[in-house]
Amino acid sequence: MDIKARIDHAIAEAIAAGQAGPTPAKLASALHYAVHPGGARIRPSILMSVALACGDRSPRLTDAAAAALELIHCASLVHDDLPCFDDAATRRGKPSVHRAYGEPLAVLTGDSLIIMAFETLARAAGEDPAQAARLISILARRTGMPRGICAGQGWESEDDVDLSAYHQAKTGALFMAATQMGAVAAGEDAEPWEELGARIGEAFQVADDLRDALYDGETLGKPVGQDDLHGRPNAVTELGVEGAIDRMRDILAGAIASIPKCAGEARLAALVTAQAEVLTPIKWRAARVPGE
Amino acid sequence: MDIKARIDHAIAEAIAAGQAGPTPAKLASALHYAVHPGGARIRPSILMSVALACGDRSPRLTDAAAAALELIHCASLVHDDLPCFDDAATRRGKPSVHRAYGEPLAVLTGDSLIIMAFETLARAAGEDPAQAARLISILARRTGMPRGICAGQGWESEDDVDLSAYHQAKTGALFMAATQMGAVAAGEDAEPWEELGARIGEAFQVADDLRDALYDGETLGKPVGQDDLHGRPNAVTELGVEGAIDRMRDILAGAIASIPKCAGEARLAALVTAQAEVLTPIKWRAARVPGE
Repeated sequence: MDIKARIDHAIAEAIAAGQAGPTPAKLASALHYAVHPGGARIRPSILMSVALACGDRSPRLTDAAAAALELIHCASLVHDDLPCFDDAATRRGKPSVHRAYGEPLAVLTGDSLIIMAFETLARAAGEDPAQAARLISILARRTGMPRGICAGQGWESEDDVDLSAYHQAKTGALFMAATQMGAVAAGEDAEPWEELGARIGEAFQVADDLRDALYDGETLGKPVGQDDLHGRPNAVTELGVEGAIDRMRDILAGAIASIPKCAGEARLAALVTAQAEVLTPIKWRAARVPGE
Repeated sequence: MDIKARIDHAIAEAIAAGQAGPTPAKLASALHYAVHPGGARIRPSILMSVALACGDRSPRLTDAAAAALELIHCASLVHDDLPCFDDAATRRGKPSVHRAYGEPLAVLTGDSLIIMAFETLARAAGEDPAQAARLISILARRTGMPRGICAGQGWESEDDVDLSAYHQAKTGALFMAATQMGAVAAGEDAEPWEELGARIGEAFQVADDLRDALYDGETLGKPVGQDDLHGRPNAVTELGVEGAIDRMRDILAGAIASIPKCAGEARLAALVTAQAEVLTPIKWRAARVPGE
């Protein structure tokens, strides 16, 4: 099975477990709705790529970790879209969960997906309970308070924002979870893999700023101009489009340089390089990559 | 340390970990606000009583489990109070979290407390990772979909409600978590402890119906008449006050009969008996217990 198929299978198994037996039908349906269509599934793809680069010694744990991470990401999208945050009408080209199912079920869908993420990891503990506990610790640290994506969102309610802490928590956290969980699922230490995740996260933050500034809502499948609207800091406002693209490429070069020694090092570097192109807006991509 | 002090200490440690370092101040403060004042801390008290009755062989795990369970309960109160659910202005005699901190921070407070619950258990894994993983599994099962408190809340969005599944998920789930996690933290099997939790949960459901029907908001510290208002089933509507009290006492007698053989069996039975009186509304309590 390739990476994409493994991720889809692991997510489908987790969702199916959450829908089993006598259960409220609308909430059960909303769980599936919130994780489909999947988009790039970039975080679990990075997680699995790192695990494979490290030998993927416990595929069951790797699969569970990948699913758990994506469930957390989808939960954060559902809650971020709520009327009290972005009040987004659309997500991935279809009505946001609260528009499709109502606000109560959107809150519960996010809650249920968060819980499902930890349950999925605990269920995969099997012969490796210590590794499963480490994976749960990392995922929780990168998701909650004081430095996970909840903290990142929490910074948006502060008058005095620690910008570095904000960005690391808001966008960086789940990429650090991706690289570290991939390593830990394969039996490696988490620490050497933090920088790769942090740098990929920074690059995605800049890419997101570019998309928010440049694209229209229909292309993106979600509302644009949200940073301006909510007074959030944005790399394009600060550096201009070309400047932001340059910064993104610099960051990804640093990411590649930070990859720890492992069997799959070269393949991982190629993956990050490919991401740099994917993340560059098409117009600038064409101008900078002859022949594309 | 007595049970109450152990629970308070474990919760304080978990909250402090969630507030450490550079972190959004309002969200950090809301985490503490949401778990204080504590009320009876009845769920973690049951958990710890069961663990002690079973020998409390891993006190660190017991403490973590008690804190985790109470964090989940508090998270559920924060989210249940949101405008899209009960829209409660008060809770435990003070403004609800969304009234005190605003809706975005209330959503994030609930999310963060859920995550903190699992992190607390993972952090306590230490020498017992397999037991920690089991505790995480039980807590997740009793909290999320398809049969945890999220499912319970989810049933309220259905036209066609499975009443037994609804009550077990809505109120019973965290009591079943309490008895089962207490047993597992002490190294015992979870299964024989399910019935005790289920029955205590049923008794609390009836007691809650009585309070909702009989008390005023000031005594209760939260809005009353919510069941009537939201068209939810209520034992008092169905059986009358005296009938509901009789049912509650029958259920608790069944709870006592279900306690598995263990060293602390008699003390546990006394605890459940005491709960029966605490749960009975004062007027009826006085009429039925001479001298009180």
